[in-house]
Amino acid sequence: MAVGGLLGAKVIPLEFKHFPDGESYIRFTEEISGEDVAVIQSTSPPQDANLVQLLLIGNAAKDLDARSVTAVVPYLAYTRQDKRFRPGEAISIATVVRLLEASGVDRLITVNLHSEQILERFRIPVENLSAIPLLAKYFVNLGLEKPLSVAPDKGASDIAREASEILNGGHGWMSKERDRITGEVRMQEQELSVRGTDVVIFDDMISTGGTMAAAAAILTKQGAGRVYAACVHPLLVGGARDRILGSGAKEIVGTDCVQSPVSKVSVAPVLADALRRFA
Amino acid sequence: MAVGGLLGAKVIPLEFKHFPDGESYIRFTEEISGEDVAVIQSTSPPQDANLVQLLLIGNAAKDLDARSVTAVVPYLAYTRQDKRFRPGEAISIATVVRLLEASGVDRLITVNLHSEQILERFRIPVENLSAIPLLAKYFVNLGLEKPLSVAPDKGASDIAREASEILNGGHGWMSKERDRITGEVRMQEQELSVRGTDVVIFDDMISTGGTMAAAAAILTKQGAGRVYAACVHPLLVGGARDRILGSGAKEIVGTDCVQSPVSKVSVAPVLADALRRFA
Repeated sequence: MAVGGLLGAKVIPLEFKHFPDGESYIRFTEEISGEDVAVIQSTSPPQDANLVQLLLIGNAAKDLDARSVTAVVPYLAYTRQDKRFRPGEAISIATVVRLLEASGVDRLITVNLHSEQILERFRIPVENLSAIPLLAKYFVNLGLEKPLSVAPDKGASDIAREASEILNGGHGWMSKERDRITGEVRMQEQELSVRGTDVVIFDDMISTGGTMAAAAAILTKQGAGRVYAACVHPLLVGGARDRILGSGAKEIVGTDCVQSPVSKVSVAPVLADALRRFA
Repeated sequence: MAVGGLLGAKVIPLEFKHFPDGESYIRFTEEISGEDVAVIQSTSPPQDANLVQLLLIGNAAKDLDARSVTAVVPYLAYTRQDKRFRPGEAISIATVVRLLEASGVDRLITVNLHSEQILERFRIPVENLSAIPLLAKYFVNLGLEKPLSVAPDKGASDIAREASEILNGGHGWMSKERDRITGEVRMQEQELSVRGTDVVIFDDMISTGGTMAAAAAILTKQGAGRVYAACVHPLLVGGARDRILGSGAKEIVGTDCVQSPVSKVSVAPVLADALRRFA
């Protein structure tokens, strides 16, 4: 990600390797004592390895006397386990927050957290940026017909509304139920009057693509024109792409918060803006 | 590991799975509020995934109101990066210690830490157990001829001495230099008068097996009888087994601190003893 270039900031290469047994090795190749250091590291899959790396780097920066350490984590892992859905469950994001803070990181910049409530768990300042305007702009150039921004579930309805402001069209959401144990998704049709409109389905992330595929199929069945699938975090697990494209979506568009073949939109400009505000 | 059975303690199964994107899911299937909980989890490869799991479980136990949480970590990862060998390096074990403590774990039980100095980094109580007596006992049954316990470097010389008390024979160590950048090991012969003796080389861990293989080759060349390779933590990366056995060692013996094909000695009895002392 070209954040350093946009900022005009000094980019210090990290020496990074794996020892033969798999442990990470990290070394700052230049003096950082007294500097404001931004560590840019997504915690996309493999989540645990990337998370430990982030924690090692953040903690090392602090230990090497950086004046401040800002963790820039475009995709934060474990945000979906943000409450106890069944008794005895680990609230994994609570642990991740605690570990990040323990590493000595002074502040966090992230993009489209899965839920706003997660912010309340942090004691350090967090800036939760939105990549939705940038993502929506991608579709402006496609010349959509009566563009409708649709959320595949109520949780993403704010995202769809935000996108509709850029796309200059309507917005709506679909109702979805997910079985927490089997992971099965049931989706209900809604009257969205999609006939003759081009629809972009917006979500914060696409994992297996089940939700997105179900939404695309229903919208196509309801007579929508072109249907697109858009998300900030394209995890695209397993056959997610085929599943979504096979359900009637014309194209999948994601950002580089998670590197993937559909990461067509760079969030570097919003990250750079946020870092500039801190400087 | 049969620690629960040896203790007569209640064993609570953890529900554990990976979400499709790779995140860990953890759930205690029984009430643990008010209980003294011991979490047994090695951080052998894949280290980062196992470490995050340990932190999630420890933190969840605390969050579910366990009276105390004891982390039993037979193999603790990242112990070799215990100081700054080159400027700018992350002291990874310092971060791991910090994360363990932040997870809310009240105390740690571990086995043959790579260096005793690591203990000084902890604020929580740590019990650093030795599996060497159990490991040495394995060789007592083999009927060795004038058994000599040898450390492949000075760092392991205490281990060899400890083993020699069980094997009822002499002990010594070899001098080794490792190039921190290339990882290359140079080993110097020492006068150990090994001719006609059976030798067991003891180390805390075997990773790629380079050190152990070099030691076995030198001792064989010096005229030792049977040569054995023994370690507490058999990581055995890549072709370690072939490398060691091809250098003249007759057998490799490790403990189950790290699960491997040579984990012939169980440390469950020493872990159970330690837990019993806490109870």
